[in-house]
Amino acid sequence: MTHRLNRPTEDVLARLSAVVGPGQALSAPEDQARYLTEWRDLYVGKTPLVLRPGSTEEVSEILKIANEARIGVVPQGGNTGLVGAQVPFEAGDEIVVSLERLNKVRHVDPAAGYMVVEAGVILADVQTAAEDAGALFPLSLGSEGTCRIGGNLGSNAGGVQVLSYGNTRDLTLGLEVVLADGRIWDGLRALKKDNTGYDLKDLFIGAEGTLGIITAAVLKLFPRPVEKATAFVALSGLDAAQDLFERARAAAGTNLTAFEFMAGWCVDVVVRHMPGNRRPLEGDAPWYVLMEISSGRPDGNAQSTLESLLEGAMEDGHVVDAVLAQSLDQANQLWKLREDMSEAQKYEGGSIKHDISVPVAAIPEYVRRAEDVVQGVCKGAKPFVFGHYGDGNLHYNVTQPEGMDKQAYLELWDVMSEAVHDLVVSMGGSISAEHGIGRMKKHQLAKYRSAVELDMMRAVKNALDPNGIMNPGKLI
Amino acid sequence: MTHRLNRPTEDVLARLSAVVGPGQALSAPEDQARYLTEWRDLYVGKTPLVLRPGSTEEVSEILKIANEARIGVVPQGGNTGLVGAQVPFEAGDEIVVSLERLNKVRHVDPAAGYMVVEAGVILADVQTAAEDAGALFPLSLGSEGTCRIGGNLGSNAGGVQVLSYGNTRDLTLGLEVVLADGRIWDGLRALKKDNTGYDLKDLFIGAEGTLGIITAAVLKLFPRPVEKATAFVALSGLDAAQDLFERARAAAGTNLTAFEFMAGWCVDVVVRHMPGNRRPLEGDAPWYVLMEISSGRPDGNAQSTLESLLEGAMEDGHVVDAVLAQSLDQANQLWKLREDMSEAQKYEGGSIKHDISVPVAAIPEYVRRAEDVVQGVCKGAKPFVFGHYGDGNLHYNVTQPEGMDKQAYLELWDVMSEAVHDLVVSMGGSISAEHGIGRMKKHQLAKYRSAVELDMMRAVKNALDPNGIMNPGKLI
Repeated sequence: MTHRLNRPTEDVLARLSAVVGPGQALSAPEDQARYLTEWRDLYVGKTPLVLRPGSTEEVSEILKIANEARIGVVPQGGNTGLVGAQVPFEAGDEIVVSLERLNKVRHVDPAAGYMVVEAGVILADVQTAAEDAGALFPLSLGSEGTCRIGGNLGSNAGGVQVLSYGNTRDLTLGLEVVLADGRIWDGLRALKKDNTGYDLKDLFIGAEGTLGIITAAVLKLFPRPVEKATAFVALSGLDAAQDLFERARAAAGTNLTAFEFMAGWCVDVVVRHMPGNRRPLEGDAPWYVLMEISSGRPDGNAQSTLESLLEGAMEDGHVVDAVLAQSLDQANQLWKLREDMSEAQKYEGGSIKHDISVPVAAIPEYVRRAEDVVQGVCKGAKPFVFGHYGDGNLHYNVTQPEGMDKQAYLELWDVMSEAVHDLVVSMGGSISAEHGIGRMKKHQLAKYRSAVELDMMRAVKNALDPNGIMNPGKLI
Repeated sequence: MTHRLNRPTEDVLARLSAVVGPGQALSAPEDQARYLTEWRDLYVGKTPLVLRPGSTEEVSEILKIANEARIGVVPQGGNTGLVGAQVPFEAGDEIVVSLERLNKVRHVDPAAGYMVVEAGVILADVQTAAEDAGALFPLSLGSEGTCRIGGNLGSNAGGVQVLSYGNTRDLTLGLEVVLADGRIWDGLRALKKDNTGYDLKDLFIGAEGTLGIITAAVLKLFPRPVEKATAFVALSGLDAAQDLFERARAAAGTNLTAFEFMAGWCVDVVVRHMPGNRRPLEGDAPWYVLMEISSGRPDGNAQSTLESLLEGAMEDGHVVDAVLAQSLDQANQLWKLREDMSEAQKYEGGSIKHDISVPVAAIPEYVRRAEDVVQGVCKGAKPFVFGHYGDGNLHYNVTQPEGMDKQAYLELWDVMSEAVHDLVVSMGGSISAEHGIGRMKKHQLAKYRSAVELDMMRAVKNALDPNGIMNPGKLI
């Protein structure tokens, strides 16, 4: 989509600066730098002004001015996004609005099951505020020490606990949003059941800042689990994962709070390169699962449920070995192995990354067919396969062949991705399970979505942001 | 909102009839009657034509013609809606499109956790198709033998299992929708994680037919619980309900599959008027709870969890008595008491009905304050209070004072509702927890929603239905 936007004039920049006050309007390069660089250096943008408003009202005044002047606005949370939605383009025509100073936890009500937070609160701090009140806010990602809840909302973040608790959209009861024209929508409702009009909240969640700026949210709180049982399991083959998953779901239902899977090779790579890790089991299985069952009662039920379902799976030959954590330390050790997996990949050379999902039971077929596709693009390339099995979500990252020149390998990125994504879409899957579209996948979205759907998205975008100032060039 | 719509001409009606074929285009009054009357006779409409398309393509052709001719279209499922959204107005300018013949279950895949159904499948049949495949589709309402899934989607139906499984929106992974201009949107995706654009699906769900016609949906399937433990509990007072609810949530988490509450008087009324019911407990408590814990394992854990949490609540004096069902029959008997509650009310005279929700922990305060409000409007009126405690959703229906003329009492409906709704909204609650807005609450929506929010809704409506043909005069 293209709208006629203007380069900001000095006058407009001065008026915008006046909204936030001198220390919060940044134009010097050294002050701006950290807002302009995507954290893997994939995108480096330019802007005449980074603004750091201190309140919803300031955000409102900023957008009012920007909308009238028709200048592009890039909202930013913790700048941890993985598809470049949060940084401006290189042309330097857009202003950046950082939500970092809207960092109050406004209200925590565990009895009523919700909390109200501002968009700039760091996710780890949201978790802590819930914990301090004896409750659980279950959204959990690798970047939680840095990312901000507004960014999680804008990207409908997933993470490791989606299986049981859902993604950010499932965890949100209401929003406060500043619209493109500066008007404030107070949708901060804390109701589980409320059928009074269109579901506007879910439009803004996952919209990647292209429909308005989320300034606060009502989030769901849950009781904290009292017990967790964790097991690391060696499978006979990948098809065994589906059987184990179905057993676990039947036995534990939504108490199955994690079901991660990984190729045997991935475990080797982590143990080899990441200090503090060791193989949890003897031998070499082709596939492993890390699973967790939680419980609200301190009665050993989580552990006995896990033991009993693993026994059943072993009798059937699907599971060849398993170790149950006997302490919190052991459980943390198993999780560290999984958490170090992302970083471990780089030690094996160039890696072409995909964030895909397929219908859950299609994972084994996808992995088989994708192997052929990958070999077709680059013989000897090695899929480093791990992910959230229960959500159908694989971090399907393809490592270079040994000995190949890294740069030459990375030049195959587009060809490899197109082939992988063609397969994913043909199997009814998604080319972006968690990370969103942003700048990185905008043209792919146009390729894989129907004309009708793209039209609907444009129609909604035009309805809510007629001048097209909100994060132009991202998503749609 | 008003758009310039036309009265259908004979030519347009002939072309519409040709789409569906002779037996499926109804113009005779005796054929049309059942589509025109809301089931409580609150609204009786007129139409030149009721159409019964047999496929998504036929729905598409109908809307293409209607959109070009600018005539109003009223989509209808099972005609069980409670706010008049599903019947045409008395002027007789709109056509009615019944989805009843789109009644195929297209696909059931329990391993992958989803099923694909057409909009006209009766909800009970959706449940059965899931059960036949060994899985659970948990949406369950009183009208499930008649209502159709398309209507459930259009109204974001709730029901008795929202506490654990969520409402219709939470249970839906994808949609097939015919847009106002006749184009078909194939959004039938079965992915749990998919961040590739705006959440359009959730716009259509709960839109009450005003944005397009839903023709099929991908619904989530769950494992079937293997055990259920059911208890009927006498409380010391209404504040005790919150304590019991928090205990139950902490102990059972999402295995707490029901937590209904009711005033002591309501139990009396049911036992007095509805055959086959008797008091589950001796004595007269002011408030009762019917609760259920489910489990995926046949190990008695649901029963022991329920016993142990009730013991704890009794020690604290919150619970004064309780009976646990010892058999499926006993459990069904307890549920029958609850299910007969809606119908039992009419035997006590005129009833002014409300479908409200407040934040869960606010229920006791709401009930106290609403009692004063009700007495202020009509001294001696008797709130008949029961509902889904865990969702904050009360069927707050006010029975007439004994001896008052029924008609005179019902003439107080608007005054009573306004007072009740003013209180609900002042407490952050909803004037329509489950039933939607339709025709009945359209003007109230305009009163209680902000101008910004109404503008956003109109903007979205205009974007997706520029000629305003979709269910005009309903919702917005």
